[in-house]
Amino acid sequence: MKIAIDAMGGDNAPQAVLEGVKLVLPELKRDVELVLYGDEGTIQKGLAELGVRDARVTTAATSEVIGCDEQPTLAIRKKKDSSMVRAIEAVASGEADCVLSAGSTGALLTGATLIIKRLKGVKRPALATVMPTVDACALLLDCGANTDCKSDYLVQFALMGAAYMKRVIGVDNPRVGLLSNGAEEEKGNELTKETHQRLKTAPVNFTGNCEARDVLGGAFDVVVCDGFDGNIVLKGTEGAAGLIMDLLKQALMSSLRTKIGALICKPAFRLLKKKLDYTEYGGAPLLGVNGGVIKAHGSSNGKAFRSAILQAEKLISSDVTRLLGAEIAQYDLEEKVAERAEGGNAPGVRFSTSRAGRDED
Amino acid sequence: MKIAIDAMGGDNAPQAVLEGVKLVLPELKRDVELVLYGDEGTIQKGLAELGVRDARVTTAATSEVIGCDEQPTLAIRKKKDSSMVRAIEAVASGEADCVLSAGSTGALLTGATLIIKRLKGVKRPALATVMPTVDACALLLDCGANTDCKSDYLVQFALMGAAYMKRVIGVDNPRVGLLSNGAEEEKGNELTKETHQRLKTAPVNFTGNCEARDVLGGAFDVVVCDGFDGNIVLKGTEGAAGLIMDLLKQALMSSLRTKIGALICKPAFRLLKKKLDYTEYGGAPLLGVNGGVIKAHGSSNGKAFRSAILQAEKLISSDVTRLLGAEIAQYDLEEKVAERAEGGNAPGVRFSTSRAGRDED
Repeated sequence: MKIAIDAMGGDNAPQAVLEGVKLVLPELKRDVELVLYGDEGTIQKGLAELGVRDARVTTAATSEVIGCDEQPTLAIRKKKDSSMVRAIEAVASGEADCVLSAGSTGALLTGATLIIKRLKGVKRPALATVMPTVDACALLLDCGANTDCKSDYLVQFALMGAAYMKRVIGVDNPRVGLLSNGAEEEKGNELTKETHQRLKTAPVNFTGNCEARDVLGGAFDVVVCDGFDGNIVLKGTEGAAGLIMDLLKQALMSSLRTKIGALICKPAFRLLKKKLDYTEYGGAPLLGVNGGVIKAHGSSNGKAFRSAILQAEKLISSDVTRLLGAEIAQYDLEEKVAERAEGGNAPGVRFSTSRAGRDED
Repeated sequence: MKIAIDAMGGDNAPQAVLEGVKLVLPELKRDVELVLYGDEGTIQKGLAELGVRDARVTTAATSEVIGCDEQPTLAIRKKKDSSMVRAIEAVASGEADCVLSAGSTGALLTGATLIIKRLKGVKRPALATVMPTVDACALLLDCGANTDCKSDYLVQFALMGAAYMKRVIGVDNPRVGLLSNGAEEEKGNELTKETHQRLKTAPVNFTGNCEARDVLGGAFDVVVCDGFDGNIVLKGTEGAAGLIMDLLKQALMSSLRTKIGALICKPAFRLLKKKLDYTEYGGAPLLGVNGGVIKAHGSSNGKAFRSAILQAEKLISSDVTRLLGAEIAQYDLEEKVAERAEGGNAPGVRFSTSRAGRDED
């Protein structure tokens, strides 16, 4: 299997990418190849400096880099020889199995959708984020690929998220929740109320609405929402965590006694930091395109790239993309059969707008 | 001035309400009257047990209580002699200036809107929550009164939130942000992109989009969003705070050394807890109705009721309701003039749906 890595993407590229490669090599299977896309001279020099010499690591020379402030569609169309576009193309052509980039999220999403293309039947690919819970993790999707969504999209996000948690993370019969403003079925906005009804009959283990306070609570393995709300949850969590850590620091520095206590507690604070450390959790997979795509955090360091490469390896070996495609096609087929049998009404669909949504695709 | 208190509302009613009354009396101005609505015998007995004897505290006997699981509209219509409905009616008739309840949020919102009624020109009242930031506080609205919103509503929420922060909290020229999935103007969903344009010309100090991570950051005094997203932010913050505190506890209990350190740090943890304690911040005011309405947290204790009563006193003495009404009327007038002058297009309005939204009212 082959992983195409955008070596020029991210705040600390290419140094952090190369460090990640060095870190991951001892853990990586023998048949995994890493192809580093970017400025060949810089990459070769960097690898030599780190003492990386491994037949599994090769380079692919590219001459351009897509910046984070570039308009995504334009950048993807114009910068044909950029490290990101070339790495994406490697997956599209079947040369590589997964692309990994810490570059512009917008460009990667646009590039993956335009070049690798959607799996047959998928209406919108979704960006999924693995979030830590007290004793495991939960997958939140969509986290930013689709700002305005229809219930069709959300139902597919549920299918895709469940497939990922099952195949890649190894969760048996993942519990799927729908992000809403109340646990009760009748709570929600127009979109979630409609989606709730449809999820009841979808082939996933739908366990009901999930309130924002329960995303990290461990009662759900997959939480489905539109990209706007996914962003609110992700960044809201980040903001709350930041505030609490700031307030804790303030409180600990408020007296000599607590300053001493803080010194003694240091190992505990380190443990907490490790648990909250995103670099342990890999990147965000883009689900629903015809190949592996992983978006690493823009500020990824070597450790984060190591995690993301291991995640790519798992994603490929789990064969999740092919299995997901088969599931979506099967669901699509079942829905069509049900529609015909019921004279145009799919099971669980009570609102007319959802049908209008389906036409669009 | 008179505050009508639903003494039977909330998980710990009426005991917590009466404890709150006892706590607040020494701080309350001489001309503030507290009228306790509920079962007279229980209230009198409770007050006697707490040794509360103050001419400013009176009771109003009611025979019914609205439960938290009752359908709001039905409960308000049927339970005419409930403590909540009677307290709301006292404000509607002008007998009292503000109603305070920790009972069912839905019933209070419905009751206030149906009985006290909206201020002239207000499309939708909004529930506002005061959130702690590192060195001050921010007002988030709407927090649950309106799940699906139009840009007209959000613009009015901005006006109402700014008026509250200015008059009641005393923030000069409050900075108003619009909750979105990116700080840049072009980020957002259809609703927020449209609202952003309208806020640019609205008579508030609009300082741009606010990402969820920045709600608690202190850069905004007012953050505007629909009730669905307000709920996501509130509960997401709660969930993240809960997870971090759990993880911190886990980490501190992981070794003898850190257990000892935790003991020494205790005053700091107490300080942190106090800063995050909602009971310090009063309740959530419902803005846009023709009288004071404050929703206290369902699990409010005596301390929380004390804060909420002080907040009601401030709300009344600030005259914010009347001033808000005047501002909304003025804005409405200006918009109409601008519309006529520009041949039907209000300044900053670029989307047709927002006009459709206005018809509804």
